[in-house]
Amino acid sequence: MKATGIIVEYNPFHNGHDFHVHESKKQTEADCMIGVMSGHFLQRGEPALLSKWYRTEMALRSGVDLIVELPYVYATQQADTFAAGAVAILNQLQVASICFGSEDGRIEPFQRAVQLTDSSQPSEHVKSLLKEGYSYPKAMSLALQTTEDSIDLSQPNNILGYAYVKAIIDQHTGITPHTIKRTQAHYHDIELPTTPIASATSIRKSLHTQSSIEEISPYVPASTTRLLEDYVTTYGRFHDWEQYFTLLKYKLLTMTPRQLADIYEMEEGIEYRLLDASKRASTFAEFMSLVKTKRYTWTRIQRMCVHILTHTMKEEMKPFLHVDAPPYVRVLGMTKKGQEYLRLIKKKIEVPLVTKISKKQADTILRLDLKATSVYGMSLPEPLRSQFSMQDFTTPPIILS
Amino acid sequence: MKATGIIVEYNPFHNGHDFHVHESKKQTEADCMIGVMSGHFLQRGEPALLSKWYRTEMALRSGVDLIVELPYVYATQQADTFAAGAVAILNQLQVASICFGSEDGRIEPFQRAVQLTDSSQPSEHVKSLLKEGYSYPKAMSLALQTTEDSIDLSQPNNILGYAYVKAIIDQHTGITPHTIKRTQAHYHDIELPTTPIASATSIRKSLHTQSSIEEISPYVPASTTRLLEDYVTTYGRFHDWEQYFTLLKYKLLTMTPRQLADIYEMEEGIEYRLLDASKRASTFAEFMSLVKTKRYTWTRIQRMCVHILTHTMKEEMKPFLHVDAPPYVRVLGMTKKGQEYLRLIKKKIEVPLVTKISKKQADTILRLDLKATSVYGMSLPEPLRSQFSMQDFTTPPIILS
Repeated sequence: MKATGIIVEYNPFHNGHDFHVHESKKQTEADCMIGVMSGHFLQRGEPALLSKWYRTEMALRSGVDLIVELPYVYATQQADTFAAGAVAILNQLQVASICFGSEDGRIEPFQRAVQLTDSSQPSEHVKSLLKEGYSYPKAMSLALQTTEDSIDLSQPNNILGYAYVKAIIDQHTGITPHTIKRTQAHYHDIELPTTPIASATSIRKSLHTQSSIEEISPYVPASTTRLLEDYVTTYGRFHDWEQYFTLLKYKLLTMTPRQLADIYEMEEGIEYRLLDASKRASTFAEFMSLVKTKRYTWTRIQRMCVHILTHTMKEEMKPFLHVDAPPYVRVLGMTKKGQEYLRLIKKKIEVPLVTKISKKQADTILRLDLKATSVYGMSLPEPLRSQFSMQDFTTPPIILS
Repeated sequence: MKATGIIVEYNPFHNGHDFHVHESKKQTEADCMIGVMSGHFLQRGEPALLSKWYRTEMALRSGVDLIVELPYVYATQQADTFAAGAVAILNQLQVASICFGSEDGRIEPFQRAVQLTDSSQPSEHVKSLLKEGYSYPKAMSLALQTTEDSIDLSQPNNILGYAYVKAIIDQHTGITPHTIKRTQAHYHDIELPTTPIASATSIRKSLHTQSSIEEISPYVPASTTRLLEDYVTTYGRFHDWEQYFTLLKYKLLTMTPRQLADIYEMEEGIEYRLLDASKRASTFAEFMSLVKTKRYTWTRIQRMCVHILTHTMKEEMKPFLHVDAPPYVRVLGMTKKGQEYLRLIKKKIEVPLVTKISKKQADTILRLDLKATSVYGMSLPEPLRSQFSMQDFTTPPIILS
């Protein structure tokens, strides 16, 4: 069986994702589609709209055969660590190809860009641009613009694509990278379009502001609509940052600047901005507008906030920053075909394959993921909150026949 | 002018307190009554029913001339440190007498008990009782029961009285201790009585469960009734532990056992109980019932929880455990007479006299009190919450003419 890996968040799963799954499968001639999916906190430093189990089922009902979790230590990182973690997991799962969506749509420019930035010359160029005050993505983009037929690395999916190809090469995986041009919807679009493909951003915005699942149903598979409805029935609402702002504010007010400086991604100076803003703001939106500076991207600040919220410290993240083997491969769900594939290759997986959590795993390698689930569940009322925090233990992998 | 000090929490001020203020004034022939009062978290490890400013006004309207704050570092401690801090502050304020309520009602047995426990013999006796597994108050009580005409140190107000007299002697203050027998109500009574004196416990219970101020009005001065009503109108409700349980649960779930071990009063072993209980409990009451063991008193566990809630660490409290001079004397309110008294003696105060908070004080000596106020305000909805956290800066001492 030939497997293709995709790196996803499905927040929520929509028609664009559906297209990507099926087109990837066709282009790579795969028998089995494997998704490595972020857990409850996402790369842009946000809580997921709904739980990882619901998002897993959405994927399984739309053509993905196996969903494994991208651990917190990778999922809440900037592009390079995020990509390296995801590729390392897919490599453990013996995928032949990885296929990602991009604004560009051609794989060669990505491969060329990785080769170029691998030599010392452009790297120095990037360094000098960073010294001039450009952000990392912007500096990379400027450096690459001097080459012919280059990809635009200011585009969010191109940035990730570049990081995937780089990780595939750096980790000597032998995986073949593929890319598919994203159709119509732009990553940051906030309005719903008239075509069946809408951006996840516009879908989320609609779900948060209108709380109307009906309005977004033209843009998502019927199974997604049903699962979104079921989630609201069960948990009352979708998750967003505002629901966690009380906890973030409380956490900040009980921390000294020195304690805050130990939080992952915290850099000198910004901790005072965060502490000050937390005292003055009464909503997360207000807080962000007070904290935002030209020096840091929005997503970078949001990621810092996620690490504060979960109290994730520099020393806890350090072991994962140089990605070698992932700490584990955790199965969230699979179809019969995914199950069959896993049975065939599981002896080749060099790290623990987690389907049921042991006490030892809960205290060690899975600790940050379990904590992320508990913190994520804090936005729910009791008794749902206490039940939710146990779900990592009580929910077996979803199996779809 | 002759001043008498009283050590109070006024949670809330009731007729028994009113009796105590006036009887103390009469017995000690005082011109000026000075109360040192706990801030937002109390000795039994609980949030106060209502803010320290409201409780200050209750006192000023019922015969107390000056209210100063008992800092967090003393207010949330077991009897000996609580008493030592309070006595040190009253000593700075040049009181001639301290008059406390007790179950016993005679001062000589307290003085004798302090002398007895000061010698090495009973101290060894106490030590051996502690080794047998008795709690500190119980061991003290048993040791003293072997002496004639002894006070019952299992009674909560006798315990505090003993600690006041001990501090008065240990600190070489020259203050004369007095005590007044508490009338009728017992400290732990939970039902409202038919006489005009009810315990603060029964009054609080009534306010929390019935939310009926009318029901408790026979037991409190009219000014207290009015201030309680005003508080509910302004802030929506009184404060209790249940309102902070979400924050406590969240705090615990984002701490490792090692981080928890650094919290003040945390002892080896109990941190695991606390972490485990926080995962299983959905209310504070349930949490406490899961944590409670014979080894620790209820109030001791509640105090631990206050320190977790405010994230107060061992290293922060250490400098205050040997009480010498208090870090500051902070005025919360005064009558014209209290103001006059303060003007007369203020040159004799050896520590900062705080009426308006400076930036430096906010960052240093007052830091824990300001944090306590902010955490206390977290139970309120926005925008009250943000306003409340600034009240230490925006509220000048209450002056009653």
